Amino acid sequence: MSFSFEVAHTHGAARRGVLTTPHGIVQTPAFMAVGTQGAVKAVTHRDLDRLGCEIILANTYHLYLRPGADRIGRLGGLHRFIGWNKPILTDSGGYQVFSLAERRTVNEEGATFRSHLDGSEHLLTPESAVDIQAQLGSDVAMVLDECLEHPATHDRACESLERTLRWAKRGRDHFVRLRGRMLGSDPRTSTSTGVRPPSTNPGQAQFGIIQGGTYPDLRRRSVEETVAIGFDAYAIGGLSVGEPIPVMYDVTEQTAQLLPADLPRYLMGVGTPVDLVECAARGIDMFDCVLPTRNARNGQLFTSTGRLNIKNAEFAEDERPLDEACACYTCRNFSRAYLRHLFQAGEMTAGTLNTLHNLHFYLDTMRRVREAIVFSTLEEVRQSYRRIFPA
Amino acid sequence: MSFSFEVAHTHGAARRGVLTTPHGIVQTPAFMAVGTQGAVKAVTHRDLDRLGCEIILANTYHLYLRPGADRIGRLGGLHRFIGWNKPILTDSGGYQVFSLAERRTVNEEGATFRSHLDGSEHLLTPESAVDIQAQLGSDVAMVLDECLEHPATHDRACESLERTLRWAKRGRDHFVRLRGRMLGSDPRTSTSTGVRPPSTNPGQAQFGIIQGGTYPDLRRRSVEETVAIGFDAYAIGGLSVGEPIPVMYDVTEQTAQLLPADLPRYLMGVGTPVDLVECAARGIDMFDCVLPTRNARNGQLFTSTGRLNIKNAEFAEDERPLDEACACYTCRNFSRAYLRHLFQAGEMTAGTLNTLHNLHFYLDTMRRVREAIVFSTLEEVRQSYRRIFPA
Repeated sequence: MSFSFEVAHTHGAARRGVLTTPHGIVQTPAFMAVGTQGAVKAVTHRDLDRLGCEIILANTYHLYLRPGADRIGRLGGLHRFIGWNKPILTDSGGYQVFSLAERRTVNEEGATFRSHLDGSEHLLTPESAVDIQAQLGSDVAMVLDECLEHPATHDRACESLERTLRWAKRGRDHFVRLRGRMLGSDPRTSTSTGVRPPSTNPGQAQFGIIQGGTYPDLRRRSVEETVAIGFDAYAIGGLSVGEPIPVMYDVTEQTAQLLPADLPRYLMGVGTPVDLVECAARGIDMFDCVLPTRNARNGQLFTSTGRLNIKNAEFAEDERPLDEACACYTCRNFSRAYLRHLFQAGEMTAGTLNTLHNLHFYLDTMRRVREAIVFSTLEEVRQSYRRIFPA
Repeated sequence: MSFSFEVAHTHGAARRGVLTTPHGIVQTPAFMAVGTQGAVKAVTHRDLDRLGCEIILANTYHLYLRPGADRIGRLGGLHRFIGWNKPILTDSGGYQVFSLAERRTVNEEGATFRSHLDGSEHLLTPESAVDIQAQLGSDVAMVLDECLEHPATHDRACESLERTLRWAKRGRDHFVRLRGRMLGSDPRTSTSTGVRPPSTNPGQAQFGIIQGGTYPDLRRRSVEETVAIGFDAYAIGGLSVGEPIPVMYDVTEQTAQLLPADLPRYLMGVGTPVDLVECAARGIDMFDCVLPTRNARNGQLFTSTGRLNIKNAEFAEDERPLDEACACYTCRNFSRAYLRHLFQAGEMTAGTLNTLHNLHFYLDTMRRVREAIVFSTLEEVRQSYRRIFPA
């Protein structure tokens, strides 16, 4: 299977589609669970299979530093290394360099940073981000972009966008060269490091990233110039970084409608259950967010009647499941009282059972959204989610 | 189902049996995974089901302090509270009071201690240990004994044994009164606290505990006087506390052969895979130990070729499973390289996958032992385990 996307139904701006990758298909709109270091925290792959999880995201920055992309490449790529045979998307590493790494300096070449693990110095460039992800062999690689701080002036956002566009061109050119070499058309091409890294997934796709902050003119320019470069699909970056939610929805809506209708659209790092429903309604096909998994480990659950903090004393003798409407393993078998006890006692199983529930809730939300697009009932789903999770 | 035990085969001193409890049967010799706070650390109940785990142990001390035995009683007992419908054995709480609690003082009445959680003061007596376990409603309750330090002089061991015998009489009397009351024969009997606690498992059995340190005469006296009190079955306590392994085996062998042949024999807190095989060969039917679960979380695995420390750098690019002869989920799906990465990266999933493997190894060891008793091949199994795990 190679990379392709087909829209089967539309309902307003929303689309019900199927993404095909070298490791299988993904029903869209889709939520990608975050498996930062090659594992979705607190659950096993068979748990994910059972939840109906069709694609996970892994973080290039973390895997590059530990255990190392070279090592993963030698071991046959990320799918084989982690034992997950379904689709994987990797980010470029840029976001973590901007948010986690130490002593970071950015210039036209790329971002120099020190590892948060051992202080070692590294350079991430548009080309090396391609090489690293080629070694990882994810089904979808992301181009390296500059992550704009929020708030940013129009001048600053414009300047950053222009660098992102130059990086996008370099990243795409390098990716295309590498793909050509993989397919045998240009065997002399060397990589950015002069060493030919193994590319462990010849069918890997590369997504471009739309930036431009909260400025409609910059977003429009970003779409035009990024699409002109010609990626396999496009993501919307730089949102959910502190701007008001209505602004996030507006930028998403305006940007999504400018993007090619026949390619998947990925809204990076978003969001709450309401965000998923609202942005799917605005034409987004793919999402990722740490919220369901991280919140689960902190005892914060998403349920069909709203948020629930399992730490609360009121649950100490509550024999009901987290969510009486939920069919997940946790809700079918365990009481709030037991889940609160496990959390208070610091048992790892608390993280596991809470994560199973929150991921089920997120994946179930996407199933509802997909069904609602087909049956033209998305407005009811939106109202329902806004009622359950008031702003 | 009420409590019963049937020996189906014997081979030398070893017995292949079936233990029946109010929550189902247990094939013996059996290993009980330790679920200290009502959860076997790092795995879910469905993981345990899939591993073929038939009985778990829970720690009364921990559950009494958090979430509280009263609370568990109000919630219908431990099985219902934790959502585990198979057999559960609870210890008396004594061992943890002696090893974990702060400012402990022991006198004839019982043990006064302060909680390691909040410093609150508590008194554990032979009677309250019965009441607490009645609230928990485990299938097997253990009588409160005094835990003897090692090494101990004969005088000290004798003095401690005598207190343990007096406590055993009080504990058994109280258990029988409570059971009678549960069955309606003596409704006026009050508990040690004057409050009638709920007893959540009318079919609960109570095991006596044989003490006496490493002194054969004291062990013999302990058996005679404890059996004279008349428990539902007997455990051997006070071993695996620092004495040489050959001494542990000798005391186990000598003590086991003195115990009633028609009742299950439980060797408390033992041990390594070799210990399980060696002590099953000496007539033990039940074991518990934190070794497989705790070691798993520390990266120490038991395999068919010996111990393996997954932290070791030699495994960084080792594509083999932990144990090529193992059929567990971890070994069927993941490489040593990935498991090492998860461990080094501090992923919770490392604990889960390692625990699944070690518990599988332990439960598989018991399956081999049971089969070897039936087919009279236990000597081969013993030789094999001694070769794999040299002293």
